[in-house]
Amino acid sequence: MPLVRIDLSSALLPRAAAVSDAVHQAMVDTFNVPPDDRFQTVTPRPAGELVCTPAFLGVRHGEQVVFVQITCAPGRSLDMKKALYARIAADVARQAAIDPADVVINLVETARENWSFGNGLAQYAL
Amino acid sequence: MPLVRIDLSSALLPRAAAVSDAVHQAMVDTFNVPPDDRFQTVTPRPAGELVCTPAFLGVRHGEQVVFVQITCAPGRSLDMKKALYARIAADVARQAAIDPADVVINLVETARENWSFGNGLAQYAL
Amino acid sequence: MPLVRIDLSSALLPRAAAVSDAVHQAMVDTFNVPPDDRFQTVTPRPAGELVCTPAFLGVRHGEQVVFVQITCAPGRSLDMKKALYARIAADVARQAAIDPADVVINLVETARENWSFGNGLAQYAL
Repeated sequence: MPLVRIDLSSALLPRAAAVSDAVHQAMVDTFNVPPDDRFQTVTPRPAGELVCTPAFLGVRHGEQVVFVQITCAPGRSLDMKKALYARIAADVARQAAIDPADVVINLVETARENWSFGNGLAQYAL
Repeated sequence: MPLVRIDLSSALLPRAAAVSDAVHQAMVDTFNVPPDDRFQTVTPRPAGELVCTPAFLGVRHGEQVVFVQITCAPGRSLDMKKALYARIAADVARQAAIDPADVVINLVETARENWSFGNGLAQYAL
Repeated sequence: MPLVRIDLSSALLPRAAAVSDAVHQAMVDTFNVPPDDRFQTVTPRPAGELVCTPAFLGVRHGEQVVFVQITCAPGRSLDMKKALYARIAADVARQAAIDPADVVINLVETARENWSFGNGLAQYAL
């Protein structure tokens, strides 16, 4: 169900597939997302298209930031959300050699009936 | 009111305008959207920028997938949502020669006061 | 906390940084956003990628439209939202020489626990 929008510096383009894989696997492992439920946009952005504060809340950001915005169903617990954030940052860092400080994540929750996965059907509507 | 983000394979670029038109007309006909309430981004994406599972929930996806994410006002019934999904998939298929299995749709509902249609006014706030 | 997506006509590219700055400063001044809480994507779009009605609700739109979609925390009052819209439109107009009619704004509100600003932590979770 999730639709994931990954925006990252163009300099990271050779590592974009690794970022995409790491984000998806983190969702499978911590967020009850089925392995074959994968829908992502991955957007490399030249300087000027990705604007990020140099530091916020004590976290410093460099030139190679990654924004991960995930539209998903509601109802996950705070513990699950914390596990997801931790796992995405750790695995993007490890698998794509990106500073975990530079991984910014946002969830947008929307009802299960708000999805169609093809053929014009509302597969998740009760 | 809706803001519609259409992401589609670059191979579909010659048919992007047809997809855009079909999505808008489906919203007018099934979702109580005024004909002149049209705000869309249409993003052609090369391989690697649009990541889609080969199959999910029994729906198989090919190389020419279309993601349609619609931010709109809350309050439509489930029947209206089902009608919208069916109509978008059918008309994108017919008018742009795209497999209806490859039309993935997501709604994000946000309050009517959360919109300004220009001039800095909240035209829909009560 | 806000994640801001600015989409604008490619013709406005030389003024994109001014638009970005104006939107951010308006959020700081009217929406209780800390000055160093800045996360934006800025997307210049050629003809065909940005589809906008010629007129809606009595507001006429030209070729140089700007869409501003802001994902932010819930809980701002209607008065704050109205102040934000007015300020963004006025300052984008003044600082980037864009018709205020062509500034379209949408807010998507999502819970404070739905954000990670780096290092895999949920900095705003209670």
